[in-house]
Amino acid sequence: MRIIRTKAELKAHVRELKRSGKTIGLVPTMGFLHEGHLSLIDIARGKADAVIVSVFVNPTQFAPNEDFDSYPRDFDRDAALCAEHGANAVFAPEPEEMYDPSASTWVEEVSLSKPLCGASRPTFFRGVTTVVSKLFHLAQPDIAVFGQKDAQQLLVVSRMVRDLDFPIEIIAAPLVRGQDGLALSSRNRYLTPDEHLRATNLHRSLVEARAKIEAARAVKSEFIEAAKEVITAAGGKVDYVSALDRTTLREPTAGTTQILLAAAAWFGTTRLIDNELIDF
Amino acid sequence: MRIIRTKAELKAHVRELKRSGKTIGLVPTMGFLHEGHLSLIDIARGKADAVIVSVFVNPTQFAPNEDFDSYPRDFDRDAALCAEHGANAVFAPEPEEMYDPSASTWVEEVSLSKPLCGASRPTFFRGVTTVVSKLFHLAQPDIAVFGQKDAQQLLVVSRMVRDLDFPIEIIAAPLVRGQDGLALSSRNRYLTPDEHLRATNLHRSLVEARAKIEAARAVKSEFIEAAKEVITAAGGKVDYVSALDRTTLREPTAGTTQILLAAAAWFGTTRLIDNELIDF
Repeated sequence: MRIIRTKAELKAHVRELKRSGKTIGLVPTMGFLHEGHLSLIDIARGKADAVIVSVFVNPTQFAPNEDFDSYPRDFDRDAALCAEHGANAVFAPEPEEMYDPSASTWVEEVSLSKPLCGASRPTFFRGVTTVVSKLFHLAQPDIAVFGQKDAQQLLVVSRMVRDLDFPIEIIAAPLVRGQDGLALSSRNRYLTPDEHLRATNLHRSLVEARAKIEAARAVKSEFIEAAKEVITAAGGKVDYVSALDRTTLREPTAGTTQILLAAAAWFGTTRLIDNELIDF
Repeated sequence: MRIIRTKAELKAHVRELKRSGKTIGLVPTMGFLHEGHLSLIDIARGKADAVIVSVFVNPTQFAPNEDFDSYPRDFDRDAALCAEHGANAVFAPEPEEMYDPSASTWVEEVSLSKPLCGASRPTFFRGVTTVVSKLFHLAQPDIAVFGQKDAQQLLVVSRMVRDLDFPIEIIAAPLVRGQDGLALSSRNRYLTPDEHLRATNLHRSLVEARAKIEAARAVKSEFIEAAKEVITAAGGKVDYVSALDRTTLREPTAGTTQILLAAAAWFGTTRLIDNELIDF
């Protein structure tokens, strides 16, 4: 497995793969890999001849008050896991390699990126779509795999790919949970054991709301309020709990058949997200 | 020469070219081709095995009060000229083919796009960078040729390519003028014979300012004012005359060695642009 630090090396590697007729799968990550990430690599391996994993904590998707500096990093462990899971290369550039100091171009999705996480993190998705565009141009993948854990990110990236005609297929990988139900996230590392235990109620709140929505075949505000109460009762601070039409990320209408039930909440100083997909 | 109307056909054509090992040159145009455009095709032919010319009057780069509906179109003539100049394919989609009604993704350069034309056409460059990104993803060119006539567009597109790591080389083609000095433009078609004659003073104003800047090795506001007076005296209405550092499109500094001297003015209801490049 190749460890690649510069754009020039990555381009040369991609040229070589293309020349030998290999298809390329890209798995963009911020590193500190867990089973969720590893499942993305496994899926990519099943869909493409060569898998490139990017490990890059992208500064432009963090706001000044967020956790860019403290975001957990362990590159040696990440590289070992990528090798174990059959990745062909890891692309791990420094921010200075990725961004020119005079960089002034953004890729911005302006509809699906607005509600949910976009409301409390208004510059987050612009950072994501910009860096993902750069990674797509550098790695020139045939497919790219994103986790359903970041449901809104998956929708925004898929919309971007459609709107800008990227010649890339986006693969959605199922959310992976721990045995206690907590969605795997690199940020779980921030939680104390007590916070971790309490944070499992984020998932429980959504499972309960999901059952009610499925039984009623409708979203009622009381279901959402009850979910918020579950989180609050567990000591969490709700950012949002919301059930939206999955195509538009707007309030469901009579014609809605696919719903994204999503939540974000703080446990201690850690902001966690989770979601359920509901199909009528 | 193939005439291609859909994205799917273009993708298939590009796949075929790539499979046979051919390099691709793209010449993005809005059609109604003149000698300037044809010189871009000739340059692309010298740099790539196959040349794709796009002919697309892009609605997203026109503001509601601008000339999208009246922009001159003559596709049969354009196609004949492309064939004559050895193009491999013309891509001429309808707006409905290019844009989904729910499209919500923009590519936006936020620095070089602000002054000059960006000041009077604040959504213009966003439309350009977005459609050019789409064309780049669809045609997957190795090189793309843009005219120096649209100097700011060339700078903005080049910046976008650098910032987003498009694997594409941008080639700048020299501005082409008529014998009377007027820069060739599809919009010259709008001018009455009298307006055309008066519009030649746009070029003259810049040539005179250029001589003064070169002699002084500095930009002085009196040079700019004199250029504006030449335009006004010829019955033109000045949008801007400006001499900026070509790297930053900001006011020149002591370190500036490359200047873009650019002007925009209305003659009758037609807005024309022109520019000179000055190197100290």
